[in-house]
Amino acid sequence: MPEYKAPLRDMRFAMYEVLDFGSHYAQLPGAEDATEDTVQAILEESAKFAEQVLSPINAEGDRVGCTWEDGRVSVPPVFKDAYRQFVDNGWAGLSQPAEWGGQGLPASLGAVFYEMLGSANHAWSMYPTLTWGAIKTVSAHAPRELQERFLPPMVSGEWSGTMCLTEPHCGSDLGLLRTRAQDNGDGTWAISGSKMFISAGDHDLTDNIVHIVLARLPDAPEGVKGISLFIVPKFWVEDDGSVGAANGVSCGSIEHKMGIHGNATAVLNFDAARGYLISPPHKGMSAMFTFINESRLGVAQQGQGHTEASFQGALRYARERLQMRAPKRVLPEQPADPIIAHPDVRRMLLTQKALAEGGRLLNYHCAKLVDIAHHSPDTGARHRAEVELALLTPIAKGCLTEFSLEATSNGIQVLGGHGFISEWGMEQEYRDTRITAIYEGTNGIQALDLLGRKILPDPGVMLPFAERVRAFCAGELPAAAAPLAASLGEQLDLWLALTDELRAGAAADPDSVGAAAYDYLMLAGYTTLAYFWAASAAAAARALEAGSDEGFYRAKLATARFYFERMLPRNHCLAQTIRSGAGNLMDVEEAFLG
Amino acid sequence: MPEYKAPLRDMRFAMYEVLDFGSHYAQLPGAEDATEDTVQAILEESAKFAEQVLSPINAEGDRVGCTWEDGRVSVPPVFKDAYRQFVDNGWAGLSQPAEWGGQGLPASLGAVFYEMLGSANHAWSMYPTLTWGAIKTVSAHAPRELQERFLPPMVSGEWSGTMCLTEPHCGSDLGLLRTRAQDNGDGTWAISGSKMFISAGDHDLTDNIVHIVLARLPDAPEGVKGISLFIVPKFWVEDDGSVGAANGVSCGSIEHKMGIHGNATAVLNFDAARGYLISPPHKGMSAMFTFINESRLGVAQQGQGHTEASFQGALRYARERLQMRAPKRVLPEQPADPIIAHPDVRRMLLTQKALAEGGRLLNYHCAKLVDIAHHSPDTGARHRAEVELALLTPIAKGCLTEFSLEATSNGIQVLGGHGFISEWGMEQEYRDTRITAIYEGTNGIQALDLLGRKILPDPGVMLPFAERVRAFCAGELPAAAAPLAASLGEQLDLWLALTDELRAGAAADPDSVGAAAYDYLMLAGYTTLAYFWAASAAAAARALEAGSDEGFYRAKLATARFYFERMLPRNHCLAQTIRSGAGNLMDVEEAFLG
Repeated sequence: MPEYKAPLRDMRFAMYEVLDFGSHYAQLPGAEDATEDTVQAILEESAKFAEQVLSPINAEGDRVGCTWEDGRVSVPPVFKDAYRQFVDNGWAGLSQPAEWGGQGLPASLGAVFYEMLGSANHAWSMYPTLTWGAIKTVSAHAPRELQERFLPPMVSGEWSGTMCLTEPHCGSDLGLLRTRAQDNGDGTWAISGSKMFISAGDHDLTDNIVHIVLARLPDAPEGVKGISLFIVPKFWVEDDGSVGAANGVSCGSIEHKMGIHGNATAVLNFDAARGYLISPPHKGMSAMFTFINESRLGVAQQGQGHTEASFQGALRYARERLQMRAPKRVLPEQPADPIIAHPDVRRMLLTQKALAEGGRLLNYHCAKLVDIAHHSPDTGARHRAEVELALLTPIAKGCLTEFSLEATSNGIQVLGGHGFISEWGMEQEYRDTRITAIYEGTNGIQALDLLGRKILPDPGVMLPFAERVRAFCAGELPAAAAPLAASLGEQLDLWLALTDELRAGAAADPDSVGAAAYDYLMLAGYTTLAYFWAASAAAAARALEAGSDEGFYRAKLATARFYFERMLPRNHCLAQTIRSGAGNLMDVEEAFLG
Repeated sequence: MPEYKAPLRDMRFAMYEVLDFGSHYAQLPGAEDATEDTVQAILEESAKFAEQVLSPINAEGDRVGCTWEDGRVSVPPVFKDAYRQFVDNGWAGLSQPAEWGGQGLPASLGAVFYEMLGSANHAWSMYPTLTWGAIKTVSAHAPRELQERFLPPMVSGEWSGTMCLTEPHCGSDLGLLRTRAQDNGDGTWAISGSKMFISAGDHDLTDNIVHIVLARLPDAPEGVKGISLFIVPKFWVEDDGSVGAANGVSCGSIEHKMGIHGNATAVLNFDAARGYLISPPHKGMSAMFTFINESRLGVAQQGQGHTEASFQGALRYARERLQMRAPKRVLPEQPADPIIAHPDVRRMLLTQKALAEGGRLLNYHCAKLVDIAHHSPDTGARHRAEVELALLTPIAKGCLTEFSLEATSNGIQVLGGHGFISEWGMEQEYRDTRITAIYEGTNGIQALDLLGRKILPDPGVMLPFAERVRAFCAGELPAAAAPLAASLGEQLDLWLALTDELRAGAAADPDSVGAAAYDYLMLAGYTTLAYFWAASAAAAARALEAGSDEGFYRAKLATARFYFERMLPRNHCLAQTIRSGAGNLMDVEEAFLG
């Protein structure tokens, strides 16, 4: 069974040696308590929770799964005690608003914490994260009295939350949604309709579940401009905050699915369920997007977390498994060498390592931008952070989840036949992470969001990140990092040139954007990770120049080299396919495809 | 639930319009009965069996799985009736030797038949294929009297077979195996040891199971040169052929695994089990390779079969699912367009189609070479076919199974959230095919076999295939195929140039071969498929020039274009990573990798 160990050394490297969280927290209003010592202590304690409580129940959660009986959903029983510890020890509120009982630590620290939860136990970790998303939505949009009623028990973890968007006939296309709301005349609405694919949609972990629901008012226009946002609790909440009778929400079934078996993916039927309208009429979609963008960053973390967990399992096995002589034998006294001495096994492991650690930096960088966008006193800085997040969110969500498919596949492959066997846990990483490329907007949707909705209409959206990369490349760099910076600069030029070409061609062929989008997303992702690997190499080289003899830094330089020489060349192929146009996709009669 | 339809039109195209099975069968000794009409009739009947008997029980086989109780293994009950029909209707012996009761049809026709079985139900299909592998081994190596005793019930399907190679401490490295054989002094041997990962290792489908077992004689040298090959039946077979008492083989457990749940992956304990030695002493490995090479071609077919099945499911969904407006709207009267009108969905589907149909040609071409290698009266032709097979076997096994990981992932992605849900069946394709990249030699082993064991030591191994490609490119080609041939020629040049470079550098750095091997394998695969797509385009263009207006041919040309413009460019990246050397993998201290 894979045993997750929080990579605290690398987390510290990412936060403090590459991304300068030290001065970030020193400047960030409200982050005064997040001194390096406090952060370290919190991370060490979170690591224990992830390693000792969540990781050991990950496999059983998968094996037992959720069960549905007579409309009631039970989580894997082992999940309950872990959840109780999570609530009792105050983890639920770590980076939630102090005003509602949370500890008010920065969002970025919550992200580092979340990486551990997701790496150790993806299915379990979704119960709190969906609650956090719902908290964010209620905090941003609900009137004060509803916040007072709902937020304290959600922040403590006593109640959980969900986001109810998808319906049977509409997933990517929310404009088609049909759930309706009728005015009850008493300040509440009667919501009716059927939702599906609702993660953590029903369960027995908490006393109540606060559903955030998209529905249409009676006079709603068609499409996405006619959608409103509601709070619909599973059990009605009285004015004094006490939990009352069951509301008109029932769980029709839960899905049998490939992975995340410990999380209930529910069909929820709303039958005149009472709820509160919390968006302006018909303006629910934009309200929802405050939640969606940050939850996409959470999914990016899940993908990266699987990459890390799979890397750990594969590395451990590769060190222990003796099989065949390596070209340069390392254990001559044994009948075979450990497979880590075989170049092709190294290739698979280094791919995982490059993606896990590069992805970590991208995620933490985004988390830092979230801190700034929400709390910086500097309007310009807030705006720049928002623009950079607009660019990096689909890249992180799309690419880190795609990378996790490859990385967890490598994890299986390193173990050979054992990789396919449940008890080794590598196959669970592969199955569980597959959903990350799908939910919160499929990666095809991320690609269209990046290229079609953001970059092409507004060239400025690339500026803050491009300037960051240019500034890095132009800065004074240790000798070991300079060639990487030069190569990074070329890749940025390529990315910008492709963008100009696509913008120039988009009007002539409306299919050209969709035809290029996915490969463009991936090219953006490889280039973005190249920046973080060059920055990692620079930080590591500086530490070595300053006299450190930590092998950790030498491995950073080696992994950066691996990334630039073995992964970044994928951009050559992507540039060519991006430039190949839409004709090779669309000039074929659909009827004859098969 | 996905409903498999045998792609008979495309199978006919591959066999008769590209690979010229017509004249192949006309020239092949023993294939006199395989007229085009007979073949067509056989394929139509096999299609019915695969579509109506095997495909409908594929999901239930996955859900129910095999069970182990007190040392006895039961297959999913629905598998039994299908197996009975298979035996009763003579399918088991379709391309098995007439001498032992089979129908004696060419191996290549058996391969086309097998594609249908594997596409419809991989787990079920492994019971017969392992038997076929065992038949081949017994036919090639056992003395006549054992053939008479064992082959008739194996050919009829009354008994099944296995191949027992792997042990807990040795998978890729069979040189480490420990199972021992002691001479009983009566012409039989007592085999003792533990084998694992034995596919179809125990089950209740047949009255007896004939295990082919690798073990060491008492005086065996160490390593692979001390391994001998045995027949060890589950129940002893008396001299008159009747089934006697249980032999000393017990099933200790079966594995819980990610996919192919309907096939029992067994731990088999041999406790002085009686068996017959069927190889010369210590020469079991080379005897085993007659089986292993052809079973690798079978695995290539399984990978391609999953690609096809996943393509079919995704295509059907993409035509029916209405979601969002496509850039060029196709159903203006509906609220949304079918997702097949979206360019990015086309990209995923065309990737599947290019891999399914290109892979089919590679498999059928290999199957044709097997016919020739075994039965051609022309020694030179037999030898050339063997050499070409030596090259193409690791390419087909390695690349078509790698391709299936991507193709079945696309199948999930086209369905979005539904792709992750069991009832749609797409996730089962993704899970089931994952083993194909592992068993019968991991793809890393295939890569080393191709580059390190075959091509570098013997440049001649590339000749027959390279000459075939050159001849095609130099031939008279329809206008639509000429540019593809030009590009194919460049890719072949690149492949050969890389080979020379690697050969020149191999002595200087023994790690360089392993460092290049996987990417080299993939480059070989993309180039090989480019040949088959260029040949397909040529055949389709000729048919259109001859006046056909079949959309099928236009789709072939379009898919060939897609392949050359969107997939073949991957070789650019691969060439660069192949040339990057071993330093970026090996110049890092293992202790600091994580």
